[in-house]
Amino acid sequence: MPDPTANLARTLKPKTIVVVGDKRANGYMWLRNNAEFTGDLYSVQVDPTEIPAIEEMGVKNFTSLADVPGEIDYVLCAVPRQIAPRIIADCAARGAAGVSLFTSGFAETGEEEGSALQAEIGNIAREAGLALIGPNCMGLYNAKLGVRQSGEQLTGAAGPVGFISQSGTHAINFSLTGAAQGVRISTSVSCGNAEVLDVPDYLDYLTDDADTSVIAMYVEGTKNGRRLVESLQRAAAKKPVVVWKGGVTEAGARATQSHTGSLATSNHVWDAVVRQAGAITTESLDDTVDALKALLLCKPTTGAGMGLLAMTGGQSVVITDAFVRAGLDVPLLTEASYKELASFFNIIGGSYRNPLDIGGTIGFGGQQEQLQRLLDILDADDNIDALAIELASGFMARRWQADPSSLDSLLDQLVAQRDRSAKPLVTILHPGHVEEIAAQARARVVERGLPVFHSFERAAAALSKAVAYWRSRDAASAT
Amino acid sequence: MPDPTANLARTLKPKTIVVVGDKRANGYMWLRNNAEFTGDLYSVQVDPTEIPAIEEMGVKNFTSLADVPGEIDYVLCAVPRQIAPRIIADCAARGAAGVSLFTSGFAETGEEEGSALQAEIGNIAREAGLALIGPNCMGLYNAKLGVRQSGEQLTGAAGPVGFISQSGTHAINFSLTGAAQGVRISTSVSCGNAEVLDVPDYLDYLTDDADTSVIAMYVEGTKNGRRLVESLQRAAAKKPVVVWKGGVTEAGARATQSHTGSLATSNHVWDAVVRQAGAITTESLDDTVDALKALLLCKPTTGAGMGLLAMTGGQSVVITDAFVRAGLDVPLLTEASYKELASFFNIIGGSYRNPLDIGGTIGFGGQQEQLQRLLDILDADDNIDALAIELASGFMARRWQADPSSLDSLLDQLVAQRDRSAKPLVTILHPGHVEEIAAQARARVVERGLPVFHSFERAAAALSKAVAYWRSRDAASAT
Repeated sequence: MPDPTANLARTLKPKTIVVVGDKRANGYMWLRNNAEFTGDLYSVQVDPTEIPAIEEMGVKNFTSLADVPGEIDYVLCAVPRQIAPRIIADCAARGAAGVSLFTSGFAETGEEEGSALQAEIGNIAREAGLALIGPNCMGLYNAKLGVRQSGEQLTGAAGPVGFISQSGTHAINFSLTGAAQGVRISTSVSCGNAEVLDVPDYLDYLTDDADTSVIAMYVEGTKNGRRLVESLQRAAAKKPVVVWKGGVTEAGARATQSHTGSLATSNHVWDAVVRQAGAITTESLDDTVDALKALLLCKPTTGAGMGLLAMTGGQSVVITDAFVRAGLDVPLLTEASYKELASFFNIIGGSYRNPLDIGGTIGFGGQQEQLQRLLDILDADDNIDALAIELASGFMARRWQADPSSLDSLLDQLVAQRDRSAKPLVTILHPGHVEEIAAQARARVVERGLPVFHSFERAAAALSKAVAYWRSRDAASAT
Repeated sequence: MPDPTANLARTLKPKTIVVVGDKRANGYMWLRNNAEFTGDLYSVQVDPTEIPAIEEMGVKNFTSLADVPGEIDYVLCAVPRQIAPRIIADCAARGAAGVSLFTSGFAETGEEEGSALQAEIGNIAREAGLALIGPNCMGLYNAKLGVRQSGEQLTGAAGPVGFISQSGTHAINFSLTGAAQGVRISTSVSCGNAEVLDVPDYLDYLTDDADTSVIAMYVEGTKNGRRLVESLQRAAAKKPVVVWKGGVTEAGARATQSHTGSLATSNHVWDAVVRQAGAITTESLDDTVDALKALLLCKPTTGAGMGLLAMTGGQSVVITDAFVRAGLDVPLLTEASYKELASFFNIIGGSYRNPLDIGGTIGFGGQQEQLQRLLDILDADDNIDALAIELASGFMARRWQADPSSLDSLLDQLVAQRDRSAKPLVTILHPGHVEEIAAQARARVVERGLPVFHSFERAAAALSKAVAYWRSRDAASAT
């Protein structure tokens, strides 16, 4: 039998897309999602009441896949489930490279009819070597080519993250939430019930994909655990791999069955296997986005010594607790550092042991020279491996709203620091009571490519995961 | 010696406030903070270059405390540390009830001069029975009376939460962040170095304060651990008490020394003692605000059976994981519930085991009748003790921005549900990629008094703490 994975590269980097069965009732979502596709976009729809609206969108419609001209790389199929087998057969007959089957109502229903339909579709695709994505999925997001799972996703501005998801929601939410925080996607696949192509297939593809430097995934289960582990090992040896497992609790696993029909894996087994493969585990969308920020937007370090800069004494205490709780260290600085600090840093009402109290330097009047001295001292200090700076709790965000240039000049200073230093630098901007204003300030941090976290706890957890990863890489390359 | 705590009630519910030493260099912050004070506000300032600006603010200035007319309940002192002992002596001589000493540079410096000054001030206050708050603190916030620690704090709209904080930052951030999420304050005290009045004194006060039904605190340490435990026990027997401990790690404890001069308490000992006293422990500002939402805005339950309503299959899996990880249960429903659900709930593309998939009911077109049937089924189900509903991830927030009335009618429905049901109901609104819009939607939830959380994980952690508390109350009242 032909190998469907041989068609995967063409499917995921298509030059021609055909949408089958798009209709008014779903707002022609698939044609709209792909309106910015850089290649040729066609429609197949037989219903004469739907065709005029499709042609008004500037999309050429055919009443049969057989009539579509040229090679077909990617078919987006949104027909009722009873019709799905016929369309998949048409795709096979037409020599299409791949199909994403949006339609649901298959094995995830737990009912005989749905399971039988899914098996039938799978057999057709396998026999033809058709790269079948799904069913019950949102298919492909390729930002550079303008292939989307949702009309809200960015096009053009691709990033280095490959994403695999057994949930369409998580695929879309990850791409949007990630992009808002500086984590952008190369290729994302929502693979749903994974009848023909399974998570390891996509993982193998992303492992070899030159546009992808980090891989993340939301997984509920797999038909072939051994293959997944092997693919994970191979992937993790080449790139960081972040694995967010859904259905880790007994009740959660029950929910996966009606979601994608996935069988539960014991959480203990899973966690051990994933870690042993060299991958990084996360527990939620936020956790996953945070880990990727630490991996992508920070310079690597295997040292755990944090140099912390906080706005007040109270924040100094709790930022320290947060980083130490996450497994990192907040050491004393060297004698040389303290000597230099004592020569200029005001002691009353502030502290300069570690954390350093920067309320006076960035809070009131922007004494950037003093902040620079603090950054330089931490950068030169042998006890310090990474820097974390509290940008603002709510009241600072409001101050910056009044004078955005003061935020801009601070951020430019931090960008210069990051560029010149070998030590990773993370920032924290808590939304506080001004969530809207903080979001605007956050966007200014993100657009500069600086990693920004919503809380001390989240920054600490992410950096801790990244340090553990860089250490494991170090250990692997030493042997 | 007279007892300073005897003057605490007058100090914390003042009719007359005198600000001593406010000046242009700090923007006359104390007079401005208290511009909405409902009683008499006076200034004492001897510097002739400062007086005109103070009088322009409509505040009568005196050059000596002795000249201020009438009884003085609360003095806000912001003079240089060397002058502080003289002003405290003036307060004592004048028969003021209490003083908050904003000035820093005392024991928290770890230096002899500062420690000696603090001891001197303490002795003067103790001998006079003066309720001395601080030094190195932000003093009192009493919303109803318009006494504030920060000009951003709300006045008038008081709530039921008493707050004690050894950090001015955390006192202010808690009041602002809490208010933005529906957690409002009766009385908050930032007590800094706590030279005369210590955490147990404020705790005793709030335990007996009729305006306070829940107490929360940020504590770094205490001079008298035994007294704190006794006060905690007494308080927790009357009201829920939430304790956020700063400096729980070794490095964090080091930071507390330069912050408030507090000595470290071993974290293990602390945690055990606080729990044994019947109090609830939290680890961060967000964690504390979240726990209070669950305690204040939810009906109490001792049962852990969660009925979950999520927007999609992918969210159903991860909301389940989140609640089970936090120690709660996501049980199957009763047969009767499933029979009723099967009679109307569409199975294809959605699930109705538990979680229930509500994407179709609240996501598209607002089929409120169907949502009501789901809510009623969970309300009647004996396996279910509490409900959690996913209001939105990012894309829903954007939809609601386009049509706020659809959000309003959904929220009104949930308010009616909460009012009619004995089971607690929490909502989750993740900021996703539309943090600004989500913040606007969040405000609409908060203004209705519904508890709204930023993530499944945070909702689950908070509700879990609340259930544990209600169980411990139940056990205590049974014995």
